[in-house]
Amino acid sequence: MAPNYGKTFALWREGAGEAWDDYTHHAFVRGLENGTLPRAAFLLYLVQDYVFLVHFSRAWSLAVVKSETIDEMKICAGTVNALVNHEMSLHVKTCAAAGIEEATLFNAREAVENLAYTRFVMDAGLQGDFLDLMAALAPCVMGYGEIGLRLAKSKAPDTPYAEWIETYADPDYQAVCESVGAMIDSAVESRIGDLSGAPRAARLQDRFTMATTLEIGFWQMGLKGA
Amino acid sequence: MAPNYGKTFALWREGAGEAWDDYTHHAFVRGLENGTLPRAAFLLYLVQDYVFLVHFSRAWSLAVVKSETIDEMKICAGTVNALVNHEMSLHVKTCAAAGIEEATLFNAREAVENLAYTRFVMDAGLQGDFLDLMAALAPCVMGYGEIGLRLAKSKAPDTPYAEWIETYADPDYQAVCESVGAMIDSAVESRIGDLSGAPRAARLQDRFTMATTLEIGFWQMGLKGA
Amino acid sequence: MAPNYGKTFALWREGAGEAWDDYTHHAFVRGLENGTLPRAAFLLYLVQDYVFLVHFSRAWSLAVVKSETIDEMKICAGTVNALVNHEMSLHVKTCAAAGIEEATLFNAREAVENLAYTRFVMDAGLQGDFLDLMAALAPCVMGYGEIGLRLAKSKAPDTPYAEWIETYADPDYQAVCESVGAMIDSAVESRIGDLSGAPRAARLQDRFTMATTLEIGFWQMGLKGA
Amino acid sequence: MAPNYGKTFALWREGAGEAWDDYTHHAFVRGLENGTLPRAAFLLYLVQDYVFLVHFSRAWSLAVVKSETIDEMKICAGTVNALVNHEMSLHVKTCAAAGIEEATLFNAREAVENLAYTRFVMDAGLQGDFLDLMAALAPCVMGYGEIGLRLAKSKAPDTPYAEWIETYADPDYQAVCESVGAMIDSAVESRIGDLSGAPRAARLQDRFTMATTLEIGFWQMGLKGA
Repeated sequence: MAPNYGKTFALWREGAGEAWDDYTHHAFVRGLENGTLPRAAFLLYLVQDYVFLVHFSRAWSLAVVKSETIDEMKICAGTVNALVNHEMSLHVKTCAAAGIEEATLFNAREAVENLAYTRFVMDAGLQGDFLDLMAALAPCVMGYGEIGLRLAKSKAPDTPYAEWIETYADPDYQAVCESVGAMIDSAVESRIGDLSGAPRAARLQDRFTMATTLEIGFWQMGLKGA
Repeated sequence: MAPNYGKTFALWREGAGEAWDDYTHHAFVRGLENGTLPRAAFLLYLVQDYVFLVHFSRAWSLAVVKSETIDEMKICAGTVNALVNHEMSLHVKTCAAAGIEEATLFNAREAVENLAYTRFVMDAGLQGDFLDLMAALAPCVMGYGEIGLRLAKSKAPDTPYAEWIETYADPDYQAVCESVGAMIDSAVESRIGDLSGAPRAARLQDRFTMATTLEIGFWQMGLKGA
Repeated sequence: MAPNYGKTFALWREGAGEAWDDYTHHAFVRGLENGTLPRAAFLLYLVQDYVFLVHFSRAWSLAVVKSETIDEMKICAGTVNALVNHEMSLHVKTCAAAGIEEATLFNAREAVENLAYTRFVMDAGLQGDFLDLMAALAPCVMGYGEIGLRLAKSKAPDTPYAEWIETYADPDYQAVCESVGAMIDSAVESRIGDLSGAPRAARLQDRFTMATTLEIGFWQMGLKGA
Repeated sequence: MAPNYGKTFALWREGAGEAWDDYTHHAFVRGLENGTLPRAAFLLYLVQDYVFLVHFSRAWSLAVVKSETIDEMKICAGTVNALVNHEMSLHVKTCAAAGIEEATLFNAREAVENLAYTRFVMDAGLQGDFLDLMAALAPCVMGYGEIGLRLAKSKAPDTPYAEWIETYADPDYQAVCESVGAMIDSAVESRIGDLSGAPRAARLQDRFTMATTLEIGFWQMGLKGA
């Protein structure tokens, strides 16, 4: 069952069709769940995910630039700060334990799948408005929330990836998904009104679906590390 | 009577209320019409208007960045080229005749009224989408068209500003206003549908009205040169 | 004496010449210092300054977008969060005490002096790189630090503006100035090397000086409220 | 031998090392040269290249936004217009001959290799300044010029791709490469001075080399169509 991250997310998730399942039930995700994911794949993913977070933080910062209400600004600014000054530190810690330094992470050569995804999100923000950017940002934020929540219950007792799962199942992270979801609902309300049937709906869906597809590519890239 | 530059423009023009009349019937405009505008005011205006065109061209370029259809791209790219490689040359010629060189123009110290206007337009594009930018660009493009058309009929036979008036009354310039107007109508159609009553309507109107107000400030600045 | 906010700031401050003094010793500042500033002027300033902070926060967010090192990202993201989730709340509290609500603040009609300043800063970021944006952001951040520090010592014992002065004299705020100054020095080092004599120096100085000039206009606007 | 497109290009080309050869001597290029490239590969390439040109035009428009001299504006605005109102029409004609309509082209699903490349270029412009954007744009503009020039001499007499080769060997296209190269040299001169050894040199080289690598990926994608 889909977690409750707002009605716009529910619409977009539905609209992405099979791509959403391919993303949230990817072989990489199943490997985290049952513990069979090779460590090398996980580490490759982690390094690329650090670089991803760099540009994802830049994209959330662009969301502050594009905000049109004080609430949008507050939530997006808080998200940027959480990403840059907290979540990225977690990656640094995990990677340090594996002998990888932060400077190495920051300067890691980006895989093309990583580049394609983050720059697509940035450009959605440059080309469109706040909602165009949100449609491109949502699959990552909420997909990880959904995966975390599901895997917290279904994971193998001995999966070595329990800590990763816990990060996204955590009530704090779930609260982020809910607050971002509520903010998106408000943003839709004040800019469009009823989304289903609105002329912009198809284009916003395209952005959400493309970002979902790029998430699939990101997992796929991780598997190459094995 | 308002010229026919499309239904969105008609709505925005109406929505701007008195500000639209204050802009299109400003003392500076009456001075162009009856020929009483001091030459010094006109030259100050011309120098600032050159710098304005620099940033206005940058704003139309941003419109290409924000376009979502091939037709939007074609019209906006053509406009940029017309502005940069043609209209600015006219300014250069007129200014050269008055002994002012192009490098002087490009590096002229911007008046705060000029700065406020152009950067407001740029930021409308950075913050919002194509339509947010169009709402901020429209008052200049179409206001000049409307003024040119009216003054071509009402001008004093001996006004020294007949050439300026002719530039904007010219069928070529009028065609630009009509094609931009039609493009805006299409853009509204494909992004919003019915504009009146749409949640975004107020914000777009705010951008149009603010740009109109900044046009008034621009004429006012010109008068200071007298 | 100038506070120690790094060597780039020292160079830019010197380069701004009289404009820097006109800004930091403006009649508005003297009115805060000796307590003669009319309350109405202060309140007008405060409302406009809230709107200023909205766009200033957007500009600092753009700085995250433009960062090229993890340290730049951390400092800029922290600044955005401090501005949006803390400093703006102080304004809200002060204004609430004067009977002005936050929604009123957010939707206050921007004075042209305010608009010109903030949009100039945003566009410096859109047009140039991280340093172009920093040169436009520095006069506000550091000028307020310098004013706060000086007025903390020189202020009349009974000025009603002691709390305002304290905000910027505060060690926390001074630490922000120092850390931003050090970050700018690093950014100059890694992008330019020796700034004095570098081809870009004049253009960066222009941005700093223009922002300083726009600060003067901002105080001037405040005085109109009296 | 490298064509003479200016000294900055010569430096960047050299700095890209083997990647430059891998790009300009790719199997896809050899297939155009000797005529063995399967038609299906060429058509896939052509459709993706149309979508590429859409975003490439947006990137050149961003270059107008980021220009700091009137010459930079004129060259970039002319390039945008040439791309949007001329070069894209050539693609449309070629594709129409193969039964593919312009709307199909504009809405073609972008390959990830295409997406990665164009959005990387856009973001280079958003993150950095005019030169950062030029370093990311140069490999396409000048690489095609170099390939066209070489293949015009070496091509098999009966290659069905003679027209494609001619487009880029054409004196008009070569003149574009030379004028863009001269503009980049001027831009380096006025912003950096001596590029070799400048602190920014490594980062600009990274952008150029990454774009070169993404060109390799683009040819590779084309081959998949066979």
